[in-house]
Amino acid sequence: MDACALKSAERLVPPSYVSQGQEALGARQAKIRLLLEQRKCPKQGWDDLTIELILNDLAAMDSNNFSHNCGVGEREGRVYSDLVAKRHFRLAHGLGRSGDLAETQPKAAGSSILYKLTNAMMLDLIRQIGVQKTAACLVIPMATGMTLTLCLLTLRHSRPQAKFVLWPRIDQKSCFKSITTAGYSPEIIENILEGEELRSDVEEMERRVKHLGADNIAAVLTTTSCFAPRGIDKLEEIGQLCAKYNIPHIINNAYGLQSSKCLHHIQQASRLGRVDAFVQSTDKNLMVPVGGSVVAGFDAAFVAEIGKTYPGRASSSPILDAFITLLSLGTEGYAKLMVEQKTLKAELTESLRRIAEKHGLRIIEARSNPISVGWGSHTTSYPHPYLTAAAAIGMSKHDINLFTERLEKCLIKFLKQRANNLGKKVEEKQEEMKMQEDYASQEKTAKKQEGSLDE
Amino acid sequence: MDACALKSAERLVPPSYVSQGQEALGARQAKIRLLLEQRKCPKQGWDDLTIELILNDLAAMDSNNFSHNCGVGEREGRVYSDLVAKRHFRLAHGLGRSGDLAETQPKAAGSSILYKLTNAMMLDLIRQIGVQKTAACLVIPMATGMTLTLCLLTLRHSRPQAKFVLWPRIDQKSCFKSITTAGYSPEIIENILEGEELRSDVEEMERRVKHLGADNIAAVLTTTSCFAPRGIDKLEEIGQLCAKYNIPHIINNAYGLQSSKCLHHIQQASRLGRVDAFVQSTDKNLMVPVGGSVVAGFDAAFVAEIGKTYPGRASSSPILDAFITLLSLGTEGYAKLMVEQKTLKAELTESLRRIAEKHGLRIIEARSNPISVGWGSHTTSYPHPYLTAAAAIGMSKHDINLFTERLEKCLIKFLKQRANNLGKKVEEKQEEMKMQEDYASQEKTAKKQEGSLDE
Amino acid sequence: MDACALKSAERLVPPSYVSQGQEALGARQAKIRLLLEQRKCPKQGWDDLTIELILNDLAAMDSNNFSHNCGVGEREGRVYSDLVAKRHFRLAHGLGRSGDLAETQPKAAGSSILYKLTNAMMLDLIRQIGVQKTAACLVIPMATGMTLTLCLLTLRHSRPQAKFVLWPRIDQKSCFKSITTAGYSPEIIENILEGEELRSDVEEMERRVKHLGADNIAAVLTTTSCFAPRGIDKLEEIGQLCAKYNIPHIINNAYGLQSSKCLHHIQQASRLGRVDAFVQSTDKNLMVPVGGSVVAGFDAAFVAEIGKTYPGRASSSPILDAFITLLSLGTEGYAKLMVEQKTLKAELTESLRRIAEKHGLRIIEARSNPISVGWGSHTTSYPHPYLTAAAAIGMSKHDINLFTERLEKCLIKFLKQRANNLGKKVEEKQEEMKMQEDYASQEKTAKKQEGSLDE
Amino acid sequence: MDACALKSAERLVPPSYVSQGQEALGARQAKIRLLLEQRKCPKQGWDDLTIELILNDLAAMDSNNFSHNCGVGEREGRVYSDLVAKRHFRLAHGLGRSGDLAETQPKAAGSSILYKLTNAMMLDLIRQIGVQKTAACLVIPMATGMTLTLCLLTLRHSRPQAKFVLWPRIDQKSCFKSITTAGYSPEIIENILEGEELRSDVEEMERRVKHLGADNIAAVLTTTSCFAPRGIDKLEEIGQLCAKYNIPHIINNAYGLQSSKCLHHIQQASRLGRVDAFVQSTDKNLMVPVGGSVVAGFDAAFVAEIGKTYPGRASSSPILDAFITLLSLGTEGYAKLMVEQKTLKAELTESLRRIAEKHGLRIIEARSNPISVGWGSHTTSYPHPYLTAAAAIGMSKHDINLFTERLEKCLIKFLKQRANNLGKKVEEKQEEMKMQEDYASQEKTAKKQEGSLDE
Repeated sequence: MDACALKSAERLVPPSYVSQGQEALGARQAKIRLLLEQRKCPKQGWDDLTIELILNDLAAMDSNNFSHNCGVGEREGRVYSDLVAKRHFRLAHGLGRSGDLAETQPKAAGSSILYKLTNAMMLDLIRQIGVQKTAACLVIPMATGMTLTLCLLTLRHSRPQAKFVLWPRIDQKSCFKSITTAGYSPEIIENILEGEELRSDVEEMERRVKHLGADNIAAVLTTTSCFAPRGIDKLEEIGQLCAKYNIPHIINNAYGLQSSKCLHHIQQASRLGRVDAFVQSTDKNLMVPVGGSVVAGFDAAFVAEIGKTYPGRASSSPILDAFITLLSLGTEGYAKLMVEQKTLKAELTESLRRIAEKHGLRIIEARSNPISVGWGSHTTSYPHPYLTAAAAIGMSKHDINLFTERLEKCLIKFLKQRANNLGKKVEEKQEEMKMQEDYASQEKTAKKQEGSLDE
Repeated sequence: MDACALKSAERLVPPSYVSQGQEALGARQAKIRLLLEQRKCPKQGWDDLTIELILNDLAAMDSNNFSHNCGVGEREGRVYSDLVAKRHFRLAHGLGRSGDLAETQPKAAGSSILYKLTNAMMLDLIRQIGVQKTAACLVIPMATGMTLTLCLLTLRHSRPQAKFVLWPRIDQKSCFKSITTAGYSPEIIENILEGEELRSDVEEMERRVKHLGADNIAAVLTTTSCFAPRGIDKLEEIGQLCAKYNIPHIINNAYGLQSSKCLHHIQQASRLGRVDAFVQSTDKNLMVPVGGSVVAGFDAAFVAEIGKTYPGRASSSPILDAFITLLSLGTEGYAKLMVEQKTLKAELTESLRRIAEKHGLRIIEARSNPISVGWGSHTTSYPHPYLTAAAAIGMSKHDINLFTERLEKCLIKFLKQRANNLGKKVEEKQEEMKMQEDYASQEKTAKKQEGSLDE
Repeated sequence: MDACALKSAERLVPPSYVSQGQEALGARQAKIRLLLEQRKCPKQGWDDLTIELILNDLAAMDSNNFSHNCGVGEREGRVYSDLVAKRHFRLAHGLGRSGDLAETQPKAAGSSILYKLTNAMMLDLIRQIGVQKTAACLVIPMATGMTLTLCLLTLRHSRPQAKFVLWPRIDQKSCFKSITTAGYSPEIIENILEGEELRSDVEEMERRVKHLGADNIAAVLTTTSCFAPRGIDKLEEIGQLCAKYNIPHIINNAYGLQSSKCLHHIQQASRLGRVDAFVQSTDKNLMVPVGGSVVAGFDAAFVAEIGKTYPGRASSSPILDAFITLLSLGTEGYAKLMVEQKTLKAELTESLRRIAEKHGLRIIEARSNPISVGWGSHTTSYPHPYLTAAAAIGMSKHDINLFTERLEKCLIKFLKQRANNLGKKVEEKQEEMKMQEDYASQEKTAKKQEGSLDE
Repeated sequence: MDACALKSAERLVPPSYVSQGQEALGARQAKIRLLLEQRKCPKQGWDDLTIELILNDLAAMDSNNFSHNCGVGEREGRVYSDLVAKRHFRLAHGLGRSGDLAETQPKAAGSSILYKLTNAMMLDLIRQIGVQKTAACLVIPMATGMTLTLCLLTLRHSRPQAKFVLWPRIDQKSCFKSITTAGYSPEIIENILEGEELRSDVEEMERRVKHLGADNIAAVLTTTSCFAPRGIDKLEEIGQLCAKYNIPHIINNAYGLQSSKCLHHIQQASRLGRVDAFVQSTDKNLMVPVGGSVVAGFDAAFVAEIGKTYPGRASSSPILDAFITLLSLGTEGYAKLMVEQKTLKAELTESLRRIAEKHGLRIIEARSNPISVGWGSHTTSYPHPYLTAAAAIGMSKHDINLFTERLEKCLIKFLKQRANNLGKKVEEKQEEMKMQEDYASQEKTAKKQEGSLDE
């Protein structure tokens, strides 16, 4: 309701009430105005009503919602099901144009503004929580694996003859596939044990660079977030190596946006060496449904090139989720979640240590891993079988309590069975260790690379 | 998004796209502005997006949605369940203040504006579709029966000694109860057969007035909409009688707002005689869930008095339904529904006539009844057993086809059974005529007043 | 999805996953089954998904949602606007039949079950939180004022000649109007000061009974919840009086369901004397939008009679809100809210005391009032001007802090102005004490009965 | 509500009403059961209530909605914003596992079932509407361009040395980019004029195969749906060529699923020659928001390989849209849309012909193009400037009328200006032909390839 409408409302209810309501409405409009003016993630989160106000306004700006529209294109944003239209707040045109994700879609001014704001808020957040020098970012409506593939495909433009991607081993299938799907051959660098933690073997990496020839290497693909006992890759040293040999460096920061430690290492690697892009999942870091990722970098031109490499339009659904959630959280809300994650990681470790000690087991120290704690892969020769557990953003104390309680029950049952079946082979015993419902959520103990590549 | 916000948006997408979006947004805001300026039901219905735009704005004007509110009253519009809050578009404060429905609720400027607009649109619609002289109306958040009680309770102020309500018989329980619950004694005037139709016995009514004494009569309560073979009451003649003896005249126009015929008679009764209020159901006429009614009249002061008689605040839920639906329909949409109803009434009659003739039965002519068609109550002595069917607003041709098809199946089955059971008593046969699922929607053939009072 | 459907699902995903999902689905279905079997408010609140599961199932049982329905009644639950249909979870038929709220509506098995469950859960809750002997209750889709009117109208059946309602004064308009709208004459019993608290004058009440004659009195209408310095009425003594003289006793327990103290007194009054019904608001006690109330009593027949007095069908919207909220809260959730309210009442009192002392003012002791705290009406002669504040259910510590902070600012401003305007009259000064936005929520300081009757 | 729950309900409402409601509920459950049993697109579309019933059940089967879940993985489907959770019907886990889209996600049995059902319904629909021999299909949560890239990347496994994609020119950027992003070099085959229509030059294509060497060609990428005057590619002849030289054949059928003509040619091409996959957009063909596509083929193993090539999990949002819409439409609903599209294409052509003739212009005959009609690219040398318009699925007669009316206004304005500016150059005049709002939806007249590559 504009000023004229509100003026007319004074003939319906006393002006003082109108003015009070106008003030309240104005306070919300002011938030919206500020967002568009400053293009920063708000400090304090917005309530749902304000979020709906801006979404409805943006929807009204998309041509499929124009009252007098008569589309004769092949793609007019018509939506058959009302259930579908409403769940997308009537945004139907997706993102991008002419194969550039970041370009304004002429039929969808509202969706285009929403996308620019989401990228701007995301950039602001990344800078505030730890990677101050980030030059640009794009929220991509594909999950991390496919987005890593897109980054690697983009590199082909400048390094057409390159065939290899150097990759400190991380036993997670989608990461591996992101390389092969992009048409590259993964050059696996085995990690080495430092204490009980698996860390990147930078010396071996340099040997491999020399052996293959830097020009034949499309990129080094490192990882920050992974299941213990693997630690975060040595980003700074690898960054320096990449700078030295002029090799692009892509960081798989899948669930590392929530960790100030991961972000700090990225920032440092960029300062001391070379980082072309770091990619993180929206679902793991922003608590939205699976489907989006953020590609960020220190060179705006490279980030833009990734957007231009994407062929055609794309779903705006993961962007909408990120937009709503960034507004809901605000930077303060996100910072609070990060602090809670840190605390809960410590509590989870402590709870596991207590159980471990009680049953003659122990916690594997993976000090560089800020999220996951574990008892033994990411290698073909880890000395112990183990189990991992992660304290990711959004977890609660209640989750930890419930988990450790159930874990202990399983352990006791397992240990009893082991005592009863001394003659049987160890592998059979491990088979017996059937985890219930909630264990489905954990990577299984595994020695074979095949199994551990699962996600 | 205000003009400043849109100006800022030009740094995100090209100005020409912003301006195109702004125009589209402006077109919706213009509709909202016009509604507040003119306070008329829009000619063309609005789409859901525009309706949501105004509802969100109105919600933002209610104090329970103020960002910096700190309520220390006993009633602050706090809503526990998010499911509940959202289904009410976050309007929680209800209607009215100090026991006056129509008064602005200080904590709820938005809800108050919504209520005034609903009443204004409703008044506009009633005038446009047939009762041009209507002075005022109130949408009441209670169904027709309880609202009739409220009207009768309001009359007590001016006629404290009155004990009777004169009532041309209509076999529908809630109507009867609306009188007794208000503490009055219903004086039933039996209808008389005119052809096959039951019409009001105005002469008997006048005799009764003289016998009881006009001052002892709180009101005459007439009915327009009812199941055939009862016809519409003789509103004009009864209106003249009420004028002559100075007796209030309340019309139960339950589902008559959809009928230009009923509206015409109300208008005429008011012109030639006395009509204090006519009451109609929102669910039956506006296709909203059960729960609201409209009380309209030719003397704004009396309508206002009814609002003031209501004790305390009231639910805004039925008002919200009416508001949304009036905006969705527009006056053109409503007029279209009225035309369709008329056509379908004729088609229903014709379909029933066809079946009736085929099976040696016939249609009862109730020419003054614009909605319902039937084969025989509202009297203790109707000469035939019958069945009624109504063509109410919102019905479709498909409904008629399905109904008549099923009806004929039942009839054939019934007639066969009758042939097989000639020796059995007639009452038993009627018991056999078990109607399936869809017949639950019809008043059962009944001779006994008790049964036929059901609704 | 039934067992067969799930069996088929095993051809889509591995049986172990289906069985895990089935278990989860079954856990929710078990909650629904238990609710229907036991008809008790669940101990632990349900999440929204389970609530939506049961609501969708209930909706599917209403005839307007039958796939092959062909309605030819005048009232088929057709809903024009999809926005409206969805906000009511597609329940359109309202409540009741033939003018009995509690009777099953043949077209709406789902809505009818929902209503019975709501009443059963409400009864269970009332018993658990303090009024163990409650025999029956009905959630009424009208707010407290109109429901009190309905109770009084119901009493007319058994006491046709009664003209008066005895009423210990409570300065709240809707309460007063509930008597006059029902056609009775309120006999106001002035409260007397006990310490600084206004309490019911039982002796004067008995004198009045004798003077008017018990048979001429329709009921005594007492109040538990009110703004301080008025305390809760002396329910036990008045209950005994009612028993002695055989006069119905209706308790206006508007926002007293949240207070174990109010409930205790009601229980005691019933044990020691007579209580016919106690009425409470759903919005004030269950944190739902305004529009519903609960009438409860110790004689199931009387409660049923109230339901039967209601003419026609009624809105199911306030019932739906109560249903959702009772399921969301569970008895444990409600008990928790009650404890919080008690704590916050103490904190509010303490905060106000601190400010009062600092500025040479004081708190009025109204020890019997469990919700409201104040500095001075409900009488024509209270010795001091005052302000009231309530700690109602759902309030937060943050609300109290914000309120006391703002209150102090106002006070300081007011005291300064008074110092500057010593020559002006006291009434003018009170006029100056204009409260901002959030004060709109409080009863204004008032000596005149007129003003203080506002709500 | 299961049978036990319903049995208990009989203590709340009469058994006959419960049984009627149970029947209605059962009818919906039967639809769900049938869907799971037969895994076919229903013939008649479902209403929203039934769709919500199955969605709620599926959601309850995903681990993030388990009541007693305690996730300690890094990805537990936690959703921060309630707005976000609800718009996804609480499905948060996305699709796929271990980099195989089609594999069951252990944490999300419900989402996995939903995906399998969507693929099964889609396959059923494709077979029914024209490509009977389709062996398998996958709905991919990426738009057509990126999905074409994924298909091409998949081919790399079997043809590692191939560098070229043969491509009959189609001036649409995302198609071109889908080749380059996959790392291939597009070999453009210019179209030739047949009458006024541009058709594929199969002879030139064969020359090019011989010249490049079949093993160096990753695929031939043909197009069915495009803006006139380009016609559909000669799928049958090209299919035979592909078979002869053993080259994969991918068909870009972007908006051709709605056209029985396109589907017929695909079916024939497969019968007579080789087709590896045909890809279509969900938004263009199913009227859902942009973001999904369907890859279908005649060899289930190849389709499965595409799913396995996708790295990591993926958004389920486009799948959810397709699922809801397929259920809403049913095969009958879709067939009806197809018929309407055909009729409207004819009407659009006729309307344009009328205007064209009136103003001395003419329609370009592009007989093989079933959707688009035009007056002049897709070539560097089309003899006339032209404008195109498409009659896509979901268009209405009203759209055509509004469009032709506005078009004529523009034309008249343009022709007047041309008369006034005879001395000016032709190129300048074309610049003047500024199209308003609705023309944004059309490909601009263009001779330069650059411009015409836009989408």
